[in-house]
Amino acid sequence: MSEVTVGRRPRVVVVGAGFGGINAAMELGKLPVDVTVVDRRNHHTFQPLLYQVAMAVLSPADIAQPIRSILNGFNNIEVTMDEVQAIDKESKRLKLSSGTVLAYDYLIVATGSTHSYFGHDDWAKLAPGLKTVEDATEIRRRVLLAFELAERQMLETGTHPPLNFVVIGGGPTGVELAGAISDISRLYMTKDFRHIDPSVATVMILEGSPAILGAYPKDLQEKAVEQLHALGVQTRTGSHVTEIGEGYVKIGDERIESVCTLWAAGVQPSPLGKALGVEVDRKGCVLVDEHLNPAGHPEIFVCGDLAHFEQDGKQVPGVAQPAMQMGKYAAQRIGLLISGRAAGQKAFRYFDKGDMATIGRKAAVARIVWPFKANWSGFMAWITWLTVHVFFLIGFRNRFSVFREWAWTYIWKRDGVRLIVGSQDLPGWDQLADKELAARQATSSLPLD
Amino acid sequence: MSEVTVGRRPRVVVVGAGFGGINAAMELGKLPVDVTVVDRRNHHTFQPLLYQVAMAVLSPADIAQPIRSILNGFNNIEVTMDEVQAIDKESKRLKLSSGTVLAYDYLIVATGSTHSYFGHDDWAKLAPGLKTVEDATEIRRRVLLAFELAERQMLETGTHPPLNFVVIGGGPTGVELAGAISDISRLYMTKDFRHIDPSVATVMILEGSPAILGAYPKDLQEKAVEQLHALGVQTRTGSHVTEIGEGYVKIGDERIESVCTLWAAGVQPSPLGKALGVEVDRKGCVLVDEHLNPAGHPEIFVCGDLAHFEQDGKQVPGVAQPAMQMGKYAAQRIGLLISGRAAGQKAFRYFDKGDMATIGRKAAVARIVWPFKANWSGFMAWITWLTVHVFFLIGFRNRFSVFREWAWTYIWKRDGVRLIVGSQDLPGWDQLADKELAARQATSSLPLD
Repeated sequence: MSEVTVGRRPRVVVVGAGFGGINAAMELGKLPVDVTVVDRRNHHTFQPLLYQVAMAVLSPADIAQPIRSILNGFNNIEVTMDEVQAIDKESKRLKLSSGTVLAYDYLIVATGSTHSYFGHDDWAKLAPGLKTVEDATEIRRRVLLAFELAERQMLETGTHPPLNFVVIGGGPTGVELAGAISDISRLYMTKDFRHIDPSVATVMILEGSPAILGAYPKDLQEKAVEQLHALGVQTRTGSHVTEIGEGYVKIGDERIESVCTLWAAGVQPSPLGKALGVEVDRKGCVLVDEHLNPAGHPEIFVCGDLAHFEQDGKQVPGVAQPAMQMGKYAAQRIGLLISGRAAGQKAFRYFDKGDMATIGRKAAVARIVWPFKANWSGFMAWITWLTVHVFFLIGFRNRFSVFREWAWTYIWKRDGVRLIVGSQDLPGWDQLADKELAARQATSSLPLD
Repeated sequence: MSEVTVGRRPRVVVVGAGFGGINAAMELGKLPVDVTVVDRRNHHTFQPLLYQVAMAVLSPADIAQPIRSILNGFNNIEVTMDEVQAIDKESKRLKLSSGTVLAYDYLIVATGSTHSYFGHDDWAKLAPGLKTVEDATEIRRRVLLAFELAERQMLETGTHPPLNFVVIGGGPTGVELAGAISDISRLYMTKDFRHIDPSVATVMILEGSPAILGAYPKDLQEKAVEQLHALGVQTRTGSHVTEIGEGYVKIGDERIESVCTLWAAGVQPSPLGKALGVEVDRKGCVLVDEHLNPAGHPEIFVCGDLAHFEQDGKQVPGVAQPAMQMGKYAAQRIGLLISGRAAGQKAFRYFDKGDMATIGRKAAVARIVWPFKANWSGFMAWITWLTVHVFFLIGFRNRFSVFREWAWTYIWKRDGVRLIVGSQDLPGWDQLADKELAARQATSSLPLD
């Protein structure tokens, strides 16, 4: 194992290429530093649109972009697809899973968060969450297969099976998933099936807290619930899930049938936070000061969901905008530190432009703070949502193809990309391997009836 | 289990929704029959462009279309995502894996073929073949990861690792894969890496028979080899692979290093051929007469790769065109049989328009038979290939998006869709689960060096 030799220029390592890491890297690309970006994946994912991949409106390639292509214009940035295995803050070195050791002068940690099943890790298989492109493909597979299985059951038994979808968690992701399932079942799938009626599908959101979209103002919460109900989505608040099984969810003693259960209830920070060996909060987010440094380490920056940053007495939320701003701030601060001009830099301050969540095909709620203050709901909020999301997609190619797919799907109500890819196993699906199948078929007496 | 009740109209069951099955179904949609299409997958795959998904030029959604959306304009067609488990020719019934029993008056079997590893089924994991969207995604993952791993190795060790790709099989698929790997390594990936030089990658085609593109005329075979060599692809004919292992391929005692091995050497017919209980050839293809029926069963049609149909003393090849023509013929014959006008129908005859294979970004070989006879190679053949393939894609949406992606990739040499999705395991990649990682990192003494 050889160490990376010390260059003349300061070395910056960015761990994680989500919103925080990518924005830091693009800013560092302009500075006289040598940058290494480390990520386990080869692509940056535009997470706010991931639910549209899950709902077969967009393809993975529409919302994910290889990290190398985003950054290949910057000659001072190298990318390695790897994982951090250990951090030594004293010698300022990282060890990666491949064995590579990276020395750094400055370190930006932006490894984000993952699903939290609140100690019930066995729920992960029963109710997948939505963080990665693979998650989105898996959710798409399960939702589409639920309709396929219902059609098969009806062909076999002659009775219409129930089609109840359950989304656990009433934050933006849960609301978006539920609205989209309702949409595709009522608008896009009806003409595809001869036996079942996809429009009888019901969707239920189970939220543990007292409100749907808890982070939004009261009036938008109410509008969101109204719009969800208009789509036929049921919402139950104050409902703590106590058990998830194949085909059902339990709230205490009450059993709710579910052909497909999705998880949008909680996230936990990346374990790299604790591994840094600095002060973390109860959840494991790293407490950072006004310059996004953990105490005593002005050379380490923590950005995005992994950072616990307090502003006006409240923790800045773990969403895309603060992560992007933090990444940019950290990179700029490194530039100022290098040139000895950091003393005058203002503290980091999250500039809140607002939040948005779509509810189905043509409604949304938007808490707008900038460039003017307003709480919008309905169609105007949805148009705003569309515009902002296309604008923030990285890469012209993606913007163009996303716009085209949306026009295709929303305006002309045409087919999305309803491919079922991956395993075709489903409960009750007695799948046979080809050979086994051939062997059985080769027997002369056929087991018909 | 209830049987499907006997309707007034003849019932036709189509098994398999590849080129044969889909073309049969679209023709049956116009007839006074009730049709059930059975397929294990929810989508029809345009296999001639699958290698472009594998090579990150196209996305799965560009070349695959849900069977339901292709057929949803025909009210007399139902689709079920299921698998045939048993066929009873006497009572004219099929049993599906779900337990559903389908009665038929006419049956079209078009379940195609799958990879054949000539008895070495353990090679499947070491050298994936290309038949499905999942195969394409897996090949893409392996090819892209080979470059990522080389970059990591160079970052760690400082020496440039070899980048040899081996494609086993010199038919159209092997030639297309090899040409495309050469292209992406030389044209698209060079600006993405800081340490390795992707353009030093070598690609080798190993073919067991004496010629590359054995089914093509001699002059086109020679042109193809010329064009492959111009791209830096090595070709070895008469080379029988005797062993495949992690990182190598053996021809007798000779060991060839390989960072990624792909299989394009052989196919075998679906086991449903033998399961029909009619006469099959040595490979397992069903021997069919001039009306595509197995002997003694005028109500059963076998179409596409699964059929062994002799014309002018030769077996019609297992490619898209004959399958499409067979599917259409079988459906038309069913129409004539129903209306009592079948006696005058001509025997099936494959109308051979020609064959084409691309060789990289702007060359191809084309054996054109219709509308005029010519053997073309080079750029003109490539333009012909482009035109024909866009024209035959089912669905305007797909044609449009494929055209756009090609323009993007070929004309402007821009990024394709180089996403690595799925497992990130690779030989030598010591991957750690998050928890294990956290546990290791939490220990205070760090194992650096």
